[in-house]
Amino acid sequence: MKSVVIIGAGNVAFHLTRALVQNTVNVRQIFNRTLSKAEELGESHNIKFTNKISELEKADLYIIAAADKGVEELSHYIPYEDTLVVHTSGSLSMDILKGNYRKGVLYPLQTFTKNKSLRYEEIPFFVEAENKEDEDKLFKLADRISNEVHRVDSEKRLKIHMAGVWTCNFVNHLYQIGQDICDEAGVPFDVLRPLIKETAMKVQEISPHDAQTGPARRKDEIVIQKHLESIEDSRMQQLYQLLTDSIQRKFKND
Amino acid sequence: MKSVVIIGAGNVAFHLTRALVQNTVNVRQIFNRTLSKAEELGESHNIKFTNKISELEKADLYIIAAADKGVEELSHYIPYEDTLVVHTSGSLSMDILKGNYRKGVLYPLQTFTKNKSLRYEEIPFFVEAENKEDEDKLFKLADRISNEVHRVDSEKRLKIHMAGVWTCNFVNHLYQIGQDICDEAGVPFDVLRPLIKETAMKVQEISPHDAQTGPARRKDEIVIQKHLESIEDSRMQQLYQLLTDSIQRKFKND
Repeated sequence: MKSVVIIGAGNVAFHLTRALVQNTVNVRQIFNRTLSKAEELGESHNIKFTNKISELEKADLYIIAAADKGVEELSHYIPYEDTLVVHTSGSLSMDILKGNYRKGVLYPLQTFTKNKSLRYEEIPFFVEAENKEDEDKLFKLADRISNEVHRVDSEKRLKIHMAGVWTCNFVNHLYQIGQDICDEAGVPFDVLRPLIKETAMKVQEISPHDAQTGPARRKDEIVIQKHLESIEDSRMQQLYQLLTDSIQRKFKND
Repeated sequence: MKSVVIIGAGNVAFHLTRALVQNTVNVRQIFNRTLSKAEELGESHNIKFTNKISELEKADLYIIAAADKGVEELSHYIPYEDTLVVHTSGSLSMDILKGNYRKGVLYPLQTFTKNKSLRYEEIPFFVEAENKEDEDKLFKLADRISNEVHRVDSEKRLKIHMAGVWTCNFVNHLYQIGQDICDEAGVPFDVLRPLIKETAMKVQEISPHDAQTGPARRKDEIVIQKHLESIEDSRMQQLYQLLTDSIQRKFKND
């Protein structure tokens, strides 16, 4: 890829731009409908920026790094045909891109926070393209950034995206539930932070199966009942019960 | 506490002993019913060990660091009256200890894996005792190990323990569900590991509320439906729906 244009200036665009620049990829231009955001991202890397469709420069690759709901509209903006256009979404198929160019997907699996540093070489990338040649090019590009690049079709990518929802978005919500319980007990959320970190660090080395502990795992019905009785909200009780049952099904033959 | 005896030789006993010895507390003896385990722990710190009740030495503090179901029986073994006996359980009340000694609790909130190093100063401890003097002593002891020591009664401790179940045991089960989905999609669990780590690291600095992302948070019903349709097991569908609803309730006023 001799030249790349980034469409978008949000969290994903921020980190992708940084990762590409760090790996000496020529990012030629940032396009974003809100000019101030395009400017902020562009200026931090000395890259041209614009919010005018008519000023979009010709490039070998356009990366639409935007929220899912914006991708289709942005895909209309690229007027060139002899080029490759990709989006970065885990849940959208390639066909969401509406233009007479070649199409593909470059999906980084990570939760991105602006200005927070990330080790880009650790971020898994999933690539897909209409033709093998473009897929090879995307693979090579992602491979410059990351040690973990996979070729997957849209169906598999949706599954991987959902695995991310379980292990990031839903996990974060369980942190929230933990905080709510701490609030009730009058202790700060800080008391859970080392446990949260250690729980995540454990499965960096061993499998979730081997790391599983707790009342459900050891079939401690007395503690499970005590917990259920202490929960006032019936929906929270149901969630506790479902998670407990799900763990017990995993270990029913132990 | 001039002298301490550890009752038990499992994961919690292993780490408590190490934390106490590192902080120059005099651990006089390890008692465990399986002699080989008492020996292993004792010898690694040059501490006497035994599996005979008749050989239990007199000490200022006995710490019963054992699985919940074993605590009551072990509590009968201590024949001395002028001493303090504590357990390390998050879910048992102090009254589970059956003896004519003074009673208390020393609960460390962490997931312990033998031989894995931990930063003991980061582990929150929760102390409780029948009388103020003993509680002060336990507080001081925990304070030698940790920067985060709290006084809580059994009711609050049960809540904190449950918060740990949500943020450690249930979270780990969501990692397992993520792995199952990766298996189905034919990609290694490795692709989720950086996301899992980053998700835990994010809430070390910001609140779970501010860290929440994903389809439920942004009310992306299209993605939610796609995910639900791709889940074959109805119990998993129900769990996905409940977690999604629970996130949406948290953000209903956004």
